[in-house]
Amino acid sequence: MDLEKIANLQKEVYDANMELVRRNLIIYTWGNVSGIDREQGIVAIKPSGVEYDELTPEMIVLVSLETGKVLEGTLRPSSDTPTHLKLYRAFPEIGGVTHTHSTCATAWAQAGLPIPCMGTTHADYFHGDIPVTRFLTPQETEEAYEGNTGTVIIEAFQGKNPIHTPGVLCAGHGPFTWGKTPAQSVYHAVVLEEVAKMGLMARSLQPGLGALPQHISDKHFLRKHGPNAYYGQN
Amino acid sequence: MDLEKIANLQKEVYDANMELVRRNLIIYTWGNVSGIDREQGIVAIKPSGVEYDELTPEMIVLVSLETGKVLEGTLRPSSDTPTHLKLYRAFPEIGGVTHTHSTCATAWAQAGLPIPCMGTTHADYFHGDIPVTRFLTPQETEEAYEGNTGTVIIEAFQGKNPIHTPGVLCAGHGPFTWGKTPAQSVYHAVVLEEVAKMGLMARSLQPGLGALPQHISDKHFLRKHGPNAYYGQN
Amino acid sequence: MDLEKIANLQKEVYDANMELVRRNLIIYTWGNVSGIDREQGIVAIKPSGVEYDELTPEMIVLVSLETGKVLEGTLRPSSDTPTHLKLYRAFPEIGGVTHTHSTCATAWAQAGLPIPCMGTTHADYFHGDIPVTRFLTPQETEEAYEGNTGTVIIEAFQGKNPIHTPGVLCAGHGPFTWGKTPAQSVYHAVVLEEVAKMGLMARSLQPGLGALPQHISDKHFLRKHGPNAYYGQN
Amino acid sequence: MDLEKIANLQKEVYDANMELVRRNLIIYTWGNVSGIDREQGIVAIKPSGVEYDELTPEMIVLVSLETGKVLEGTLRPSSDTPTHLKLYRAFPEIGGVTHTHSTCATAWAQAGLPIPCMGTTHADYFHGDIPVTRFLTPQETEEAYEGNTGTVIIEAFQGKNPIHTPGVLCAGHGPFTWGKTPAQSVYHAVVLEEVAKMGLMARSLQPGLGALPQHISDKHFLRKHGPNAYYGQN
Repeated sequence: MDLEKIANLQKEVYDANMELVRRNLIIYTWGNVSGIDREQGIVAIKPSGVEYDELTPEMIVLVSLETGKVLEGTLRPSSDTPTHLKLYRAFPEIGGVTHTHSTCATAWAQAGLPIPCMGTTHADYFHGDIPVTRFLTPQETEEAYEGNTGTVIIEAFQGKNPIHTPGVLCAGHGPFTWGKTPAQSVYHAVVLEEVAKMGLMARSLQPGLGALPQHISDKHFLRKHGPNAYYGQN
Repeated sequence: MDLEKIANLQKEVYDANMELVRRNLIIYTWGNVSGIDREQGIVAIKPSGVEYDELTPEMIVLVSLETGKVLEGTLRPSSDTPTHLKLYRAFPEIGGVTHTHSTCATAWAQAGLPIPCMGTTHADYFHGDIPVTRFLTPQETEEAYEGNTGTVIIEAFQGKNPIHTPGVLCAGHGPFTWGKTPAQSVYHAVVLEEVAKMGLMARSLQPGLGALPQHISDKHFLRKHGPNAYYGQN
Repeated sequence: MDLEKIANLQKEVYDANMELVRRNLIIYTWGNVSGIDREQGIVAIKPSGVEYDELTPEMIVLVSLETGKVLEGTLRPSSDTPTHLKLYRAFPEIGGVTHTHSTCATAWAQAGLPIPCMGTTHADYFHGDIPVTRFLTPQETEEAYEGNTGTVIIEAFQGKNPIHTPGVLCAGHGPFTWGKTPAQSVYHAVVLEEVAKMGLMARSLQPGLGALPQHISDKHFLRKHGPNAYYGQN
Repeated sequence: MDLEKIANLQKEVYDANMELVRRNLIIYTWGNVSGIDREQGIVAIKPSGVEYDELTPEMIVLVSLETGKVLEGTLRPSSDTPTHLKLYRAFPEIGGVTHTHSTCATAWAQAGLPIPCMGTTHADYFHGDIPVTRFLTPQETEEAYEGNTGTVIIEAFQGKNPIHTPGVLCAGHGPFTWGKTPAQSVYHAVVLEEVAKMGLMARSLQPGLGALPQHISDKHFLRKHGPNAYYGQN
């Protein structure tokens, strides 16, 4: 293990977890952020059930990407770790994953509905619908609940680019988001919650409201992403 | 009386009451938390109508579990004390009770509807519906309003395990929650309010939305509770 | 003028105005609180359009109850002063009046609907519906908008006891509340906003939801008010 | 260039941008405020994608009203600059423009609905409906998205006085507001968000709710605006 790189990763994952608290997306211990060192095949993730105000960078648990085994330390990793691992294996471009029970996104997940791209705030970060998974079968639930949660997410992304749609709603559960870094996965969790809130209100004004015209959502997405992006200072 | 144990209980009940304020579940004096020392048969509860910023641990009122009489001090206990006492007598495993008028849970109570287990946030803490009581009859209201509020709660738990469903909505009134300790009863009040908020939003997206598939809610409840629990560090 | 009593009244009215800000019922200058010295026939009220963070007790304007004329100072009283004066003249038991545009109460006023007594939080402070006025006619609007706003409030209280229902919704406008003191009129503004919020949510769960059974709302009101009250420490 | 005037304008635009943050209308970098010096033909605007907590007055970008070219400095102006410029050219009385993605106003924009004047809070600042633009065509989007966003706003104000209705909803996107100064354009953004919130709630209580009687909304607007205004201290 490259200890310095690992310590930096733990700090980065710690900071991203604390940002969830500052952004008011977390009640008690309902959420977790992870990050990955792909060279070393190590995933760093919040320990299970630890209160955020007791968390330290050193408590971030190190897990093998390949085996899921804890590599060091005595704390148990988040119970959602198998979901994170499945996502890292299936989506090789992502570097961070966030899970929350943020209120509005969870309401959409409970309703079992994808969030259509109803506005440009959505289009700026998510290309097209934010999909909703199917429910796990009794057998999938029994055999490996958290791992199979990853499986149904991946299933929902058949034919979709996970970098262009960096989040999903797990039916009846809540959102997972991801990004190039742990911090960006949190950023997308904040955007998803706001988009979910706006969408709830828009639907209450206009029941059944669907997506923007395609040319508008394409324009907004491409204004911020890809070779012709012209938003920001770079 | 074991004075040291009683002072500790008062402090614990005081802390739990103040936590209600920090969690934004309380406006003015609309709520109360109690705790119990079962060996001594003493219930400690917030005094009636006292502002939270004037409350001290010494002001927590001591009441006999058996008779309901104040054991010491000059302050009157919460007017809801007879409800708390009924719950402690009927549910021998509980150690703390919380009552609030938290906004979203109260809205469900006013609508007269139980909260179905629409998501895993709910399933993590409450097994099945959060039930709603019936209204008291004119005679029950006249004879002993607060005591009979306890009676209709107990009636709503016929055949239910109050430890697996640690809360209830009193029709037209608001929630009561409980737990092994006063602090845990407050924790459950926070969860109930959040679950009620998510449920309001999910119902607005999907009118008539009901419960999760049973195997999912069972899985989540048992992941956190019982002999095979694997959430957290213990 | 009894200068000391007047200075105390100004301080009391100032404090009540600032409490509106602390309770998040005010944006910019959208609201005002007044108080009265009935012996001297003087009403003290917030000056018009002054920002709350620039307000001082000395800036509270003194107005004659009888004539509506400013008795001292150079600031103009709130443009809603004629409404306050009408209420003080018609309801001799009140000592303070509050007007806000608080979000949820204003939504009910805009919808032109009274708030039925859907829960015990309501019943604890307001006996029966919180009424909504009719709209002013073009002539009433032209002749004396603010004075006639008082007139239609009084009209809505025909046969009602304003002390038992210490607030009203002005159609299309927002709430006025009152109480024995300026502070109590603010307290009732806070309660009304919360009751309006709960009612909005309860109606979204149960469209057309009406009042509690009468015996429950009577019980709650009388538990806190009148000769047999038993809530609190007095 | 009159350097002192320009530095003052940059400070004014900076302050107005920071006020958006204090008023909770902004998440991350989703919004921008500009101001204008009409004598010198210079527009000052927030740089694109810069975080608010890193912003300084010196970073406010100076742009030519006529050509849209950056006059000084190395930062890129907000990507919405062409929209601001169109508004300054079409509405000669305005001195500041604000764009946000504030939650409730954006929900109305996503629903594609104008906000009718449902209450006096609205009437106090906006005379009549707050209009919603049409969507841009694919060609308009392709050719000059931000400039044509200005074009469709101006189209929506045919026959309307932009000073009497200082804001608009861009379909599927969000609000633009304006005023005599940058600060006033922010003030109107705050009012619009609150009016949008009240309207959402009023519509949920009373589906299809429309405007106030015309004589009431006229009265409120004219109480605060025009030669016979009598609100405030001036």
